[in-house]
Amino acid sequence: MKLYDISVTLEPGIPIWPGNPPFELERVNRLEDEASSNVSRLAMGAHTATHVDAPIHFIPGAAGVESLPLDILTGPATVFALDLPGGNITAETLEAAHIPTGTVRALLKTRNSDLWRGGPHDFRADFAGIAADGAAWIVAHQIKLIGVDYLSVGPKGAGRPTHETLLGAGVVVVEGLNLADVPPGDYELYCLPLKLKGSDGAPARAILIQK
Amino acid sequence: MKLYDISVTLEPGIPIWPGNPPFELERVNRLEDEASSNVSRLAMGAHTATHVDAPIHFIPGAAGVESLPLDILTGPATVFALDLPGGNITAETLEAAHIPTGTVRALLKTRNSDLWRGGPHDFRADFAGIAADGAAWIVAHQIKLIGVDYLSVGPKGAGRPTHETLLGAGVVVVEGLNLADVPPGDYELYCLPLKLKGSDGAPARAILIQK
Repeated sequence: MKLYDISVTLEPGIPIWPGNPPFELERVNRLEDEASSNVSRLAMGAHTATHVDAPIHFIPGAAGVESLPLDILTGPATVFALDLPGGNITAETLEAAHIPTGTVRALLKTRNSDLWRGGPHDFRADFAGIAADGAAWIVAHQIKLIGVDYLSVGPKGAGRPTHETLLGAGVVVVEGLNLADVPPGDYELYCLPLKLKGSDGAPARAILIQK
Repeated sequence: MKLYDISVTLEPGIPIWPGNPPFELERVNRLEDEASSNVSRLAMGAHTATHVDAPIHFIPGAAGVESLPLDILTGPATVFALDLPGGNITAETLEAAHIPTGTVRALLKTRNSDLWRGGPHDFRADFAGIAADGAAWIVAHQIKLIGVDYLSVGPKGAGRPTHETLLGAGVVVVEGLNLADVPPGDYELYCLPLKLKGSDGAPARAILIQK
């Protein structure tokens, strides 16, 4: 059994989506100052690093992140490596990836994952996102969970239709996965987001287990 | 297959350990204000609700939470119901719980879990924690992960020896579990804390799967 941690480390300097809150981690109680223990405080946007989106992220009045189904966030998942030196993930890209009928959880590995190899880096707007017709393809193929390896499932500047299509259809969207060291293939996914009542998203820890 | 979510919901009014930072969740970008999406910001202490402790919580210079072993945070775990109408969890309590030799992950269900039934509540100082001799018992019995159902593994006002014994021995400590609806018995545990580099603790989502 081999376990892959596909979560981005939360640390200073990680890329933040433009206009989202910064990541902060500060020790507020310190043993060296005679506190009874070391205690840190964290603050961040709900869409920082590895995270999930809730329907209310793009759909007014829709469900919050605590309602995302744990039986979809966990279970058999397949990592597909997409041949995509530039541009976005279209229906054509997905068609060419030979995603089997009946795939419930699909994690898409692209050039984006290489961005995580160096750790913290400035936000990159030229990441590969899923184009509107790619999102429609995912819904039409009844995929229930889609994972991507940069901070948004949709391309920068063109993310709205992608999010609306996926979240509107109840597809669980996992963003900010680091798939750099994961070979394509079949795994068990455990993606567990914080249980933040009413939130539009939540940071998550995600692992893959190869049996 | 049955899945139990044993995580405390993060919402306003949850009990906070005295002197720790408050829990905050605020929508900072709003669709109704012409933002491109709803985006929330969260802030909290690293030891809020369901969370894990890192050795550096009590031991100067020790490892941070990102170093906790995922192969201990996941795997077979047993829930033990302790008969403890008052007082703390001592070596005697644990001896009476018939914890089998070779138990790797033990989750202790006490009267504390009833406190989570009503949702948010004021912090309760009279929770059942593990006394110093109970912590020594756990280390002596080579348990690798111990889970408790209130905010600290040690009793209020007497937590230092318990934490030092467990964290010093490399036992993974999971706190703030809600075991109210979980029958005693054997499960697969998946406890996934945020990957916060260098932190003394991290909020986590934890589930049990009954196969």
